[in-house]
Amino acid sequence: MSDPFMQAAIEEAKKGLAEGGIPIGSVLVHRGVIIGRGHNRRVQSGSVVLHGEMDALENAGRQSANVYRESVLYTTLSPCAMCSGTILLYGIPQVVIGENKTFVGEEQWLTQRGVELTVLQDPTCVALMRDFIDANPTLWNEDIGE
Amino acid sequence: MSDPFMQAAIEEAKKGLAEGGIPIGSVLVHRGVIIGRGHNRRVQSGSVVLHGEMDALENAGRQSANVYRESVLYTTLSPCAMCSGTILLYGIPQVVIGENKTFVGEEQWLTQRGVELTVLQDPTCVALMRDFIDANPTLWNEDIGE
Repeated sequence: MSDPFMQAAIEEAKKGLAEGGIPIGSVLVHRGVIIGRGHNRRVQSGSVVLHGEMDALENAGRQSANVYRESVLYTTLSPCAMCSGTILLYGIPQVVIGENKTFVGEEQWLTQRGVELTVLQDPTCVALMRDFIDANPTLWNEDIGE
Repeated sequence: MSDPFMQAAIEEAKKGLAEGGIPIGSVLVHRGVIIGRGHNRRVQSGSVVLHGEMDALENAGRQSANVYRESVLYTTLSPCAMCSGTILLYGIPQVVIGENKTFVGEEQWLTQRGVELTVLQDPTCVALMRDFIDANPTLWNEDIGE
């Protein structure tokens, strides 16, 4: 398989699914080392702010601006407005996205603000979300405010 | 004094300050009733995602899209990119801001997306932040990713 950091994000997504949650995972990578990993916690913790990306950042803990500016965020799904805003707040310069076929977040806003995006269209990421949304449309809509 | 909901947000900010934290507070108001209140948790919980607004939303718990769309978010300080993205994610149509003299967040983005903003320039809110930033510039910079 391909990128080991995307694989780690996918592991997080699968962990979330196994817990009965929404299968979106993320890892924050600083100079080639994972410093935070996480997955969506809506179901597991009743959280409305811990999307996968937010959970990875929260688990990375308090970091200086320099660390964020040398980091890459990997996420299995295109980041929503909340997660995109957080990427901009902390000045994370690069985001690798598993897929944007099932949901397109604020990619345009990120690109306009100079964030470098790479979309892998990873078939595992697509299948995880497609199957989940088919089976749990109401829960998915809640997660994206619809 | 003026708006009771802004007063509740200020109480939250003061609570945070008394805990040794960053004095920013917020309340989420649904049809005239506070359904969530919170304050910045960077110092208290080592959180990088729980800004005041995020903490208020988290404490309001899981809500349907309809609730958010009938709600007003009160915050003592102009909302940063993360909090602005969250306001957009959940479709909160109206935000009342205590002040934007010490920090201006993504107000333009919110306005462009149709969110109605009211800036009170409340002197208590300004004094809370001005004193805090003067005394704790490094901590404040960390909170806004600088």
